[in-house]
Amino acid sequence: MLSEFSLIDRFFARRAARHPSGSADGTLGIGDDCALLAPRAGEMLAISTDMLVEGRHFFADVDPEALGHKTLAVNLSDLAAMGAQPQAFTLAFSLPAADEAWLAAFSEGLFALAERYGCELIGGDTTGGPLNLCVTVFGSVPAQAALRRDAAQPGDDIWISGTLGDARAGLGVQRGEWSADASDAATFRRALERPEPRIALGLALRGVAHAALDLSDGLAGDLLHILERSNLRATVDVDAVPRSAALRRLAPDIQRRCTLAGGDDYELCFTAPAAARAAVEAAGREVALPVTRIGTISALQTAADRPAIGWRDAAGTPLTLTMQGFDHFHAD
Amino acid sequence: MLSEFSLIDRFFARRAARHPSGSADGTLGIGDDCALLAPRAGEMLAISTDMLVEGRHFFADVDPEALGHKTLAVNLSDLAAMGAQPQAFTLAFSLPAADEAWLAAFSEGLFALAERYGCELIGGDTTGGPLNLCVTVFGSVPAQAALRRDAAQPGDDIWISGTLGDARAGLGVQRGEWSADASDAATFRRALERPEPRIALGLALRGVAHAALDLSDGLAGDLLHILERSNLRATVDVDAVPRSAALRRLAPDIQRRCTLAGGDDYELCFTAPAAARAAVEAAGREVALPVTRIGTISALQTAADRPAIGWRDAAGTPLTLTMQGFDHFHAD
Repeated sequence: MLSEFSLIDRFFARRAARHPSGSADGTLGIGDDCALLAPRAGEMLAISTDMLVEGRHFFADVDPEALGHKTLAVNLSDLAAMGAQPQAFTLAFSLPAADEAWLAAFSEGLFALAERYGCELIGGDTTGGPLNLCVTVFGSVPAQAALRRDAAQPGDDIWISGTLGDARAGLGVQRGEWSADASDAATFRRALERPEPRIALGLALRGVAHAALDLSDGLAGDLLHILERSNLRATVDVDAVPRSAALRRLAPDIQRRCTLAGGDDYELCFTAPAAARAAVEAAGREVALPVTRIGTISALQTAADRPAIGWRDAAGTPLTLTMQGFDHFHAD
Repeated sequence: MLSEFSLIDRFFARRAARHPSGSADGTLGIGDDCALLAPRAGEMLAISTDMLVEGRHFFADVDPEALGHKTLAVNLSDLAAMGAQPQAFTLAFSLPAADEAWLAAFSEGLFALAERYGCELIGGDTTGGPLNLCVTVFGSVPAQAALRRDAAQPGDDIWISGTLGDARAGLGVQRGEWSADASDAATFRRALERPEPRIALGLALRGVAHAALDLSDGLAGDLLHILERSNLRATVDVDAVPRSAALRRLAPDIQRRCTLAGGDDYELCFTAPAAARAAVEAAGREVALPVTRIGTISALQTAADRPAIGWRDAAGTPLTLTMQGFDHFHAD
């Protein structure tokens, strides 16, 4: 057990926040019963937790460096969707065995991303058991600037950052559901394994966007969360949904399935008033990330009306979509 | 999957913090990408995370109501050891199946304790997988009042709340390592399954105690954490370590093993200056919990000296203890 402890200390505790003096915000990190953390003056802590389980969120043979990256990335993505500045995280995990090479690669992927965003490891727990990774992440945001799901307004545009569907396309290639050439397959795999949290965009959208969330379960399900919390409807042009060049080389029905009912995209979906179009585009340019307008928000029309998405093609023709596999992705 | 989601909503989300207006401190809870939380004005958030795995921290046939209690209790205990006031928690868990009776009992045990301490569920994650429970808990504490592990001083007394060893005795009864009559076995089992976080004592010790931690891994290992962080030595009278009447009916060697190298006690071990003895005893009376002085802290004597515990019996005779099973408990 000592060797296990030494390994964990070697790969994690040494790179964690340890001393109050070592951190500008007075953080007390690993080594006490609790970490101590405060948001920036006048702000609140934005807090999110995600659990990743082998066989469900990743395959047993996943590259551990990529897994380290993704474990933190999916949590940082929740901060991005709130417009929060990353500050710290805790990591609890159970491991079947202490494998030095695995831990070295996993921690490398984890800390490379953490250091890029100035996000310090402040606490954790390690135990034996089936592989399970649980991160809780902390960011700082002025309460009034937080990009909440319940803040959409009738007349808002609906925007998407980056492109959608590549991660789901990569899963399909891995599963043999469809195939792609080596270059496109690499693009898809990178999207699946190394999502980039849209922190800079979230910060740039403070005071510009109304509602936001990150697309972890697929556009169709995730946008509905905004509509339900805001009690509104949406109309979306499926042909406007941004897709990579690689995805555009797959069959049209696969493109739709990947973009609308895929998942693991970790792009931001947000709403903003039409008067803010130039500001949204400026925010995208500022952070060098394309932003694409895909639809509009509208009020419910009757008392019996429910939050829902009306799908249209580029010509404005209503579409009825069946989302094969959607329930599966939505379950987590 | 819908039924699974409905069950989770029924047992967890409905009892969680949902709306900013529903919480005095402006919490935004479940239903957005992040919860929003702030410590009390001028204070910091104390944060701790623990992961409990079936087969390692509890048996598959554990009473789920007791498991719900313990899952939160072990986290609240970390707040107690910091002198922090509980505020909120997140719960991430993986479950092999959505069992309604199990979830009802688990959530009952969890929320009964949470409500007793005014600790709101503000976020979480649920997924399929081997049973794994990960709680992150948040409390509020003035930075200067936090009971840190590195704050012990030479000349401090060493104190213990309550009694030690009953939980380890209960594990021994379950494992058939020793036996006890039905009444004592029930006492031990209750200690093992339903530890009570010493929140009130932690708050009462603000400004009185120097260093503190909670005894999750056994006195011998846990006290060493204070010594290592404070760079000091300790002398402990093993006969002064408080034991329940039930534990005193087991053989003396089992008593020592359970009190010194046991674990799962979740009592507080803390140090305080000799001048504060009356204040410590008043704090114990105030919260109706016995506090017992078991030893003293001293400076290292030479450059080669290392933080360590010198064990003595009631007559002052030095003892050398071998801690069977200690490594196992220390591993988590």
